[in-house]
Amino acid sequence: MPAGPIDPPARLLMGPGPITAYPRVLQAMSAQLVGQYDPFMTATMAETQALYRDVFVTGNEATLLVDGTSRAGIEAALVSLIAPGDRVLVPRFGRFGHLLVEIAERCGAEVHTIDVPWGQVFAPEQIEAAIRQVRPRVLAVVHGDTSTTVAQPLDELGAICRAYDVLFYCDTTASLGGNEFRTDAWGLDAVTAGLQKCLGGPSGSAPITLSERAVAVIESRKSIEAGIRGVGDPVRTDRIRSNYFDLGQILDYWGPKRLNHHTEATTMLYGARECARILLEEGIDASIARHRLHGDAMLAGVQGLGLAPFGDLAHRMTNVVGVAIPEGIEGDAVRAELLADYGIEIGTSFGPLHGKVWRIGTMGYNARRDAVLVTLAALEAVLRRHGLRLPTGGGTEAAIDSYGAAA
Amino acid sequence: MPAGPIDPPARLLMGPGPITAYPRVLQAMSAQLVGQYDPFMTATMAETQALYRDVFVTGNEATLLVDGTSRAGIEAALVSLIAPGDRVLVPRFGRFGHLLVEIAERCGAEVHTIDVPWGQVFAPEQIEAAIRQVRPRVLAVVHGDTSTTVAQPLDELGAICRAYDVLFYCDTTASLGGNEFRTDAWGLDAVTAGLQKCLGGPSGSAPITLSERAVAVIESRKSIEAGIRGVGDPVRTDRIRSNYFDLGQILDYWGPKRLNHHTEATTMLYGARECARILLEEGIDASIARHRLHGDAMLAGVQGLGLAPFGDLAHRMTNVVGVAIPEGIEGDAVRAELLADYGIEIGTSFGPLHGKVWRIGTMGYNARRDAVLVTLAALEAVLRRHGLRLPTGGGTEAAIDSYGAAA
Repeated sequence: MPAGPIDPPARLLMGPGPITAYPRVLQAMSAQLVGQYDPFMTATMAETQALYRDVFVTGNEATLLVDGTSRAGIEAALVSLIAPGDRVLVPRFGRFGHLLVEIAERCGAEVHTIDVPWGQVFAPEQIEAAIRQVRPRVLAVVHGDTSTTVAQPLDELGAICRAYDVLFYCDTTASLGGNEFRTDAWGLDAVTAGLQKCLGGPSGSAPITLSERAVAVIESRKSIEAGIRGVGDPVRTDRIRSNYFDLGQILDYWGPKRLNHHTEATTMLYGARECARILLEEGIDASIARHRLHGDAMLAGVQGLGLAPFGDLAHRMTNVVGVAIPEGIEGDAVRAELLADYGIEIGTSFGPLHGKVWRIGTMGYNARRDAVLVTLAALEAVLRRHGLRLPTGGGTEAAIDSYGAAA
Repeated sequence: MPAGPIDPPARLLMGPGPITAYPRVLQAMSAQLVGQYDPFMTATMAETQALYRDVFVTGNEATLLVDGTSRAGIEAALVSLIAPGDRVLVPRFGRFGHLLVEIAERCGAEVHTIDVPWGQVFAPEQIEAAIRQVRPRVLAVVHGDTSTTVAQPLDELGAICRAYDVLFYCDTTASLGGNEFRTDAWGLDAVTAGLQKCLGGPSGSAPITLSERAVAVIESRKSIEAGIRGVGDPVRTDRIRSNYFDLGQILDYWGPKRLNHHTEATTMLYGARECARILLEEGIDASIARHRLHGDAMLAGVQGLGLAPFGDLAHRMTNVVGVAIPEGIEGDAVRAELLADYGIEIGTSFGPLHGKVWRIGTMGYNARRDAVLVTLAALEAVLRRHGLRLPTGGGTEAAIDSYGAAA
């Protein structure tokens, strides 16, 4: 037996996520299992649904968890809403817009895209013009795209979607809990998330909420599987292309029918429940303010070190700062040294930004003063060893000033 | 905040799964996270792959975890192997054969089935005859179908599949670790499992192994997603219909390329790793013998209570006993009373067997003498309260005799 007990090294995860989990979440996940239809289990599922209604700021009955990573939630939403041949519009402003295109295409959609340079966002008028031209069935948008550290304003898009009878889907994996988001007030039809960013849990469970309009579309496409199908249940020939991600069936499992589908991932359920409890105990507004406070301090700190932030600061996410890697500095070598010598992880970036931008997160458990200051002190020390001339103490001092100004 | 800390009631889960998890697995799952590309993370992924090669008894390099429940593993295997229009043969002998049909159909396969009555299995000649007639691209078979408590013999099917150039897929969710299974020796091309049965973990991670032949098929269908695609990488028009379950991309994430796909569900990875460690520390043969010992004792015990077992005992799974619900007894009322008064869960059944058969599991952590005897004593007490005349102590005595005979 070569492999010993799991014993991870101490890490402070200050990248774009996953980040260090709340210890309370990991403790909750060590609770023992109960049976799939135990009254405690079904009550815990219902309780978790209620908690996530508050997290998503929605009255949607259809609020639940998809058993998989945040990407599983995206695919469940899209494959359940999109019938092959449906037109889908994706405004792309970063890597995860590409992911929405990718998934929608595999669902058989006719995908149309509009683009802005990475680091910018769309004006509502740009999206409306594209909707008018494309007449899509679904508008699929990322809220905060960690690849560029900016967040797309969404508050005006719901009314536009209603006007053109478009279903409005949003991926909030990277933003939920740390940035303002309102499912009902903003007119969203489907929203998905993950635990590993501002919610402070491990990847592996994808909270999702669906409007009545979205549920109606999904119900019209539902087919109950053979083996548990009742005598009167219809068999459809144009079934949703996935069984695992068939939200119609998943709703029947989470709903009062309790029709067997998958076996709920109980430990992830416990974790997702604790993530929501922590967020709601603090209060969503307080959590967003905390993310903004520590995100602002981190931004001030990197600027205090003489580094240039990346992206449109007017639309920046609260929970991740993009930093232009200085000329002559090897970004990945700095990251490796930070990890090896200080146990601190910051992020690289994808595609056109790889090697040009670092991403430093301040989210969930790590949206904390000590985490911000330790990271800035260590970054200064490493950059100096890499030959960069920096204002001594410039990062920590600027961050402390930022905290002072906010107090 | 209405929801308090998670605090599950004490339960002894003696159903067909999920079952009580090994405490060691839950402890491992409370370990803190590291970053997605931390050297510790990639080493832990590689270590877990090596552990599951031993669990699956295979040399397959392509052995990894799908992030989702066991059903996610099934869908990943089928959607990655099956191109729309491919013929798939499913020999059905229980509910989970229906599930394979359901998933394969949604992958766009032309599905052909053969059937035996629930409780029986197929002779290899029956399957060969169907292969000769259908000429499928894929043979998809369940190993142990907990819905009927019998296991399909597989050892002769690999050679048949090779002779007819058929890919051989098997779902071992309910059997792996407690029943003999040999990926390479039996000529399997794709095998999937889950943690929540004999492996003694929570649902939410699906170990999978793929032969070189299966990997070649998947590689021929692979398309790297936009956003991380390199300049020379091909863009396919006949892409695998799922992004999340595209095993080509998942292999690139787990393999030396480490191409970003989903964010690995670290806590489930820790859990899956510990499940494998426990199994391999005990030894696979010893674990199978233990499952047989306690399964035999449970079978003797229910027979000692005068109850009739269900299904073909010559092919019964070691880890779950089917029990015919006696005439005049309300099966679900007995189960509810066992749970409420004794904290013990046994299973009901699906479809044609619902209300006719209980399913009592002895697997993973609960393949233990005390778990068997406590369950039999409680079952006797509850059945007597429901008016059944039973031999006093007949269950526990017969089980103890069974242990004595095995010693």
